[in-house]
Amino acid sequence: MSTDVAVNYKEIVDNAIKAIHERTFYAQYPEHPKAYGEEAPNKGQEAYNAQLGNQFKGLLQQNPTGWAGEETSPYTAKALGITYPVFEVDTLIVRAGRAFDTWKKTSADVRAEVLVDALERVKHRFFEIAHATQHTTGQSFIMSFQASGPHASDRALEALAAGYEELQRFPSNILWEKPMGKISVKLDKTFKAIPKGIGLVIGCSTFPIWNSVPGMFASLITGNTVIVKPHPKSIYPIAIVVAEIQAALQAKGLDPNVCQLAVDSSDKLITKQLAEHPLVKLIDYTGGSAFGAYVEGLPGKVTFTEKAGVNSVIIDSVADLKAVIQNVSFAVSLYSGQMCTAPQNFFIPAIGVKQGDTVIPYEEVKKALVDAIAGIAAHPQMGPGTLGAIQSDVTVKRVNSVKDLDATVLLEPNKVANPEFPEARTSSHVVLEVDAKDFGIYENELFGPIVLIIKTKDTAQSVQIAKDMAAKHGAITCAAYTTDDAMANYITEEMEEVFAPVSLNLVGPIWVNQHAGFSDFHVTGGNPAGNASFTNPEYVSKRFVWVGHRKISA
Amino acid sequence: MSTDVAVNYKEIVDNAIKAIHERTFYAQYPEHPKAYGEEAPNKGQEAYNAQLGNQFKGLLQQNPTGWAGEETSPYTAKALGITYPVFEVDTLIVRAGRAFDTWKKTSADVRAEVLVDALERVKHRFFEIAHATQHTTGQSFIMSFQASGPHASDRALEALAAGYEELQRFPSNILWEKPMGKISVKLDKTFKAIPKGIGLVIGCSTFPIWNSVPGMFASLITGNTVIVKPHPKSIYPIAIVVAEIQAALQAKGLDPNVCQLAVDSSDKLITKQLAEHPLVKLIDYTGGSAFGAYVEGLPGKVTFTEKAGVNSVIIDSVADLKAVIQNVSFAVSLYSGQMCTAPQNFFIPAIGVKQGDTVIPYEEVKKALVDAIAGIAAHPQMGPGTLGAIQSDVTVKRVNSVKDLDATVLLEPNKVANPEFPEARTSSHVVLEVDAKDFGIYENELFGPIVLIIKTKDTAQSVQIAKDMAAKHGAITCAAYTTDDAMANYITEEMEEVFAPVSLNLVGPIWVNQHAGFSDFHVTGGNPAGNASFTNPEYVSKRFVWVGHRKISA
Repeated sequence: MSTDVAVNYKEIVDNAIKAIHERTFYAQYPEHPKAYGEEAPNKGQEAYNAQLGNQFKGLLQQNPTGWAGEETSPYTAKALGITYPVFEVDTLIVRAGRAFDTWKKTSADVRAEVLVDALERVKHRFFEIAHATQHTTGQSFIMSFQASGPHASDRALEALAAGYEELQRFPSNILWEKPMGKISVKLDKTFKAIPKGIGLVIGCSTFPIWNSVPGMFASLITGNTVIVKPHPKSIYPIAIVVAEIQAALQAKGLDPNVCQLAVDSSDKLITKQLAEHPLVKLIDYTGGSAFGAYVEGLPGKVTFTEKAGVNSVIIDSVADLKAVIQNVSFAVSLYSGQMCTAPQNFFIPAIGVKQGDTVIPYEEVKKALVDAIAGIAAHPQMGPGTLGAIQSDVTVKRVNSVKDLDATVLLEPNKVANPEFPEARTSSHVVLEVDAKDFGIYENELFGPIVLIIKTKDTAQSVQIAKDMAAKHGAITCAAYTTDDAMANYITEEMEEVFAPVSLNLVGPIWVNQHAGFSDFHVTGGNPAGNASFTNPEYVSKRFVWVGHRKISA
Repeated sequence: MSTDVAVNYKEIVDNAIKAIHERTFYAQYPEHPKAYGEEAPNKGQEAYNAQLGNQFKGLLQQNPTGWAGEETSPYTAKALGITYPVFEVDTLIVRAGRAFDTWKKTSADVRAEVLVDALERVKHRFFEIAHATQHTTGQSFIMSFQASGPHASDRALEALAAGYEELQRFPSNILWEKPMGKISVKLDKTFKAIPKGIGLVIGCSTFPIWNSVPGMFASLITGNTVIVKPHPKSIYPIAIVVAEIQAALQAKGLDPNVCQLAVDSSDKLITKQLAEHPLVKLIDYTGGSAFGAYVEGLPGKVTFTEKAGVNSVIIDSVADLKAVIQNVSFAVSLYSGQMCTAPQNFFIPAIGVKQGDTVIPYEEVKKALVDAIAGIAAHPQMGPGTLGAIQSDVTVKRVNSVKDLDATVLLEPNKVANPEFPEARTSSHVVLEVDAKDFGIYENELFGPIVLIIKTKDTAQSVQIAKDMAAKHGAITCAAYTTDDAMANYITEEMEEVFAPVSLNLVGPIWVNQHAGFSDFHVTGGNPAGNASFTNPEYVSKRFVWVGHRKISA
């Protein structure tokens, strides 16, 4: 399976580097399931069925102390019954340290070859990964396929390519000759990119692959070894990726412990023990803000975090309100608002929204939005596939409790009927209406199917509040609708001051939630939503240190 | 003066970028004083004489609250009598913030043009800068000229060029077109490097320009405004640079407050007030470890520190002991060990040092080193010009107190006779001998003319101790002497694990202390000696944030 890859890895990496710099559309891994052959769907389903209720045997980590697993499908409400090998923290660290001794000396080319091979192997398991993702996260099957499959692999390749490029930034050896009148001084200089050590990647429950592979591949390509600590409720998807990385390492005669899976359980989490270990130098983290702040505050660690944010939609003026409402209502509905990029706060001016020569009153805009959100959830064909299921009970509880806030409830949450999975844990959106002065309500990230409509004086106020929220609480996205160029500039310049990217006037089949590999910087790293970005140059360069040695030239 | 520069800035920056990537010898500013014309020395001397006892008028910062200055020449023991305009912290911040509004929108090309122009202006003041540096730091005149003049300007240009390159890394605008069967989605994407805000540069007393300009130019080229807070005992040199940056800004019609000088006094330091101000986002710092740790620990700031380190010399085997001793004794003598790159700990194996087929006994190596160090200081011609003067009383006190440590004193410190400046504050080296087990003594950075000879079992022990010291206390340099290739590899690999660069077998007119712009990464950023490096890509990329905006393409 890897023979042709060994020939092509350089071309794949070079194309990816080119794509990173062009930032136009590029996909190494097609997002359409049909691209993977007729056999692939059935084989994936069979692999998934065979795994249910059994030990996950794909890892090459030896001598576990036990087996554990607690995943439950948000669709069937049943335990998956899969168990994973469990290891002592010290075992994981010792193995990562031992593997580091050779991996750090492995050339960037061999590392790239192994990692591209791993991605090629993962590609053959995209359908199994889709089922695994669906039944741990609650995403729809198609989102599971795309987000955990091709889109995640593109992100992994992007990080790999960015790291590979950064490692080549300076020459390995040069002769430095300083003229000094009649004589000259000659030094042989070598420049080495020395990896930091052991990297820890802490996964989240909703995007177990997409949010984890960039950090994994960035650390690995730059010569660090990696311990992947997934969320105990979402292990299966990333376990497949780790297994294939280990297979690729072994195929090249390298220690599979270069990349290890560290499984724990909700009642005995090992994350802090790993994070605080002095040999762990790099930490990639996706998840809630409180734990993220803890990670960022750990002394002596280089951290890459993606925490929570409060994403805004600013509606000023529109070419076609219907198209706008269609777009934003779909954006919030996708995976029931459980995407870190999903909009939460809609700012609509009390004076209404201009459309051509007319002004659509506030109440009408509000109603159109509420109706559209309700409509998607209630739509028999569209509803279940768009909203998927709710990953965690906590989210359902949050949805039901926000109704108790001091705000007008415009839309009550409901179950989303799902004929294929009648036991699915679902919830349609709750939509609240608040006034601009009620920042105590809308300044919180209300993760899940929760939308707030904030009535502002005018767009200037909308922008100022959205900006304040991003500065204080972070923002990963900001959608804005305006037909006025000056206003578009104003919004963009205000939001970029708090390092929040603006998506202007998105309509049709493209949504603010989508961040494309090789083009969009996902999370800027500049506001409290996270301190890192997929994948800017810093995302890889912080994982190693340039050291230049000199010696007298013979 | 700046007309021809306006034409050439792009060529200068492009050449500098090329040099950064080639890392061979390159100097934009010749280090030989003769390169600057026959008139230059006298003009510099006159400018210096005219400045003594007077207000420093070159700055374009308006309405000071007062004038202050407390510089004293380590050579004459007399006050320079120069005063500088003093401003409230709030005034500095407000002006920096106001200047930021336009500077951030100024193109990278205009920024580069202004900054290259500033360096051209500074070039015309290298001789005045040399006097200013000599009489604040205690460096010899020639070191003052080179370190504060051409070498510093090379470092400034290096940072400028690295930043300029990084800003061009991604396109400003692209059309992103995603094929979706019969249709396609088209987005106009813009990618912007958004500067962080106000940068603070905290200078040190010994290298007031060389250590400050990289941070200043790195912050400025990436669109941040800068407040320069020099050490109150070493203001004059960097005041000249700030004045010329302001002149270059004004010549281009830009706000001179893009770069401000913030003067304080020893009894009322404003450094913490500036550093903790919420609008200060970037801090560059050179100085002691304790304050450096405080800077690094400030929440919400991006910091670039160069603190103290314990630099080692490992002597294993030599081709010619005499050449080695000559080289290392000069390296420690330069500016009386007050360079951050100066060696402190000499590791010599008890079993002696191999030279060809013979073994030179430990005692003989030790004696040769002590004699050479004593010889340079006592040499009437060589002594004063090499050792210069001692910047601070604290250093003299330290030198005299180390004799009280529980160690054998091999060489007592003495005054260094200086006929030109009989009042100069000078000190020759104190050399102590300790055993490998006495780490409590040699693990401290003993800043100034202090050398420790550490008797080890063998070179393996020397390396392990040097490595431990670097890991725990930091190291900026490590010199090693060995004729054995395997040992050379061993030393290099061990030291690079703690991110310390190794200089092997330096003899002749090149010393471990010297770190060349465009080639050597000064401080790696990987050990406690500092968290940043002049100038790796991170040194500039951390000063701005990539933000990508998207809009539906018309």
